[in-house]
Amino acid sequence: MDIGFIGLGVMGRPMAANLIAAGHRLTVYRDSAPAREVLGGRARFAGSAAEAARDGEAVVLMLPDTPDVEAVMRGEDGVLAALRPGTLVIDMSSISPAAERGLAAEVAAAGGEYLDAPVSGGEAGAREGMLSIMVGGDRTAVERAAPIFEVLGGRVSHIGAAGAGQVAKAANQIVVGVTIEAVAEALRLAEAAGVDAGAVRDALLGGFASSRVLDVHGARMLKGEYEPGFRVALHRKDLGLAVEASARLDVSLPVSGLVHQLMNAAVAAGLGDHDHAALKLLLDGRTG
Amino acid sequence: MDIGFIGLGVMGRPMAANLIAAGHRLTVYRDSAPAREVLGGRARFAGSAAEAARDGEAVVLMLPDTPDVEAVMRGEDGVLAALRPGTLVIDMSSISPAAERGLAAEVAAAGGEYLDAPVSGGEAGAREGMLSIMVGGDRTAVERAAPIFEVLGGRVSHIGAAGAGQVAKAANQIVVGVTIEAVAEALRLAEAAGVDAGAVRDALLGGFASSRVLDVHGARMLKGEYEPGFRVALHRKDLGLAVEASARLDVSLPVSGLVHQLMNAAVAAGLGDHDHAALKLLLDGRTG
Repeated sequence: MDIGFIGLGVMGRPMAANLIAAGHRLTVYRDSAPAREVLGGRARFAGSAAEAARDGEAVVLMLPDTPDVEAVMRGEDGVLAALRPGTLVIDMSSISPAAERGLAAEVAAAGGEYLDAPVSGGEAGAREGMLSIMVGGDRTAVERAAPIFEVLGGRVSHIGAAGAGQVAKAANQIVVGVTIEAVAEALRLAEAAGVDAGAVRDALLGGFASSRVLDVHGARMLKGEYEPGFRVALHRKDLGLAVEASARLDVSLPVSGLVHQLMNAAVAAGLGDHDHAALKLLLDGRTG
Repeated sequence: MDIGFIGLGVMGRPMAANLIAAGHRLTVYRDSAPAREVLGGRARFAGSAAEAARDGEAVVLMLPDTPDVEAVMRGEDGVLAALRPGTLVIDMSSISPAAERGLAAEVAAAGGEYLDAPVSGGEAGAREGMLSIMVGGDRTAVERAAPIFEVLGGRVSHIGAAGAGQVAKAANQIVVGVTIEAVAEALRLAEAAGVDAGAVRDALLGGFASSRVLDVHGARMLKGEYEPGFRVALHRKDLGLAVEASARLDVSLPVSGLVHQLMNAAVAAGLGDHDHAALKLLLDGRTG
């Protein structure tokens, strides 16, 4: 498939490389030294988002935040300016669900199709093509995207209409972030009480407290290994999207709001580039 | 083994029944209509805690809270008054770790042995002899308790010295309670955004958000089934022990503290006798 791929950061680079390795032809944006290093000679480098989008049957976006996606879509040399009827736009960034619904409507008005398809699984999942992909949009568009998703993802969940993928991603980041804090507080209490926190984790893994976070992030906390993984600063952004949505929808998410603030505190303490398991370091009173 | 068993509530009755069924000889306290119904004709009913403790090789306590255990141990007709050298006292209640260490010292001074051995697994675990037992105390005492623990528990974790079982239990209740709130907030957000919360739960079960709470309590929330299970009011008490310990130990447990307060709110809203998954109902603005 001819694919425009926009966003060649930590996640986008391995994703684009996997698509090329699977036989797709990519026009990528934007140019950078790390992007040349990974993709040079195997992809066409475009000079603008519009140029990346112009000839593709599909355009994949993997960008940091809502304003980045809106700029790439609506800017002067943006995707919407170059969109041909029938083009499938797949936004795999993690951004606001409400923004996503607006963009889906604009793409539909221009004759294209749109999916929001944020992922979880981090850099390792991107490298291994084992991302969990949460998709919002029409079934027909999801079927068209299958040759792309099957390269990038280990699991594809079609959640619902436009924006639903982002809602699922926000829910995912709430559960993961809050559970990390739960595990951090439990282990901190054990340590402060002079009890072997590793024995506590082992005991808890056998009961209702069991979770992948207790297993994986709990082990990181006990070993004091905080290389990302998934950075506190990025998780802070994702929880910010949930907090923003909660005010728009008039729902109260008290613990999500508090963990968002604790991630603010962690960033302020210099822990923003640590793995999100570093919420434990914040409880320990340590800085980055 | 000749066992004194003190505390015949929702948990204690099936535990005592299982010990009798396994061939142990029980002297129980205190008498009540539900206790007679379950144990009548199969156990000797004592008139006081002292009488229950006097002739046993071991004494098991399964009581609601710290003051109950202290009263039964230190009261005029209490266990300490009747304790013979060598008697093994096993407190399976969920109470303050600091109180437990005090009692362990007093029992040792009287020539006995003491274990704190709180459980998780609820009424179903008690009935099925599949409790998870978290133990604090000396290894020799843990070995003496094996014939009792193997009847009551599916999993026995020796965490450390006196009080360590209670610390592990507090850690367990932090992780379970906070994870329930995390799942409730995630599903509430999905519903408020008009997204199928069941599809979100399914997607999240495949990734890092996966946990037994998302599986079991998430399903309860989606079905609106809030029969306990484990009551909000009891979990509120257990988180209160963690909050109390945090102040004593000078550690900050911000999210545990907030979830404790949310459980206060749930009790105030008439949800205290609902399953702890009813934290979801609180977010929905519903009352009991």
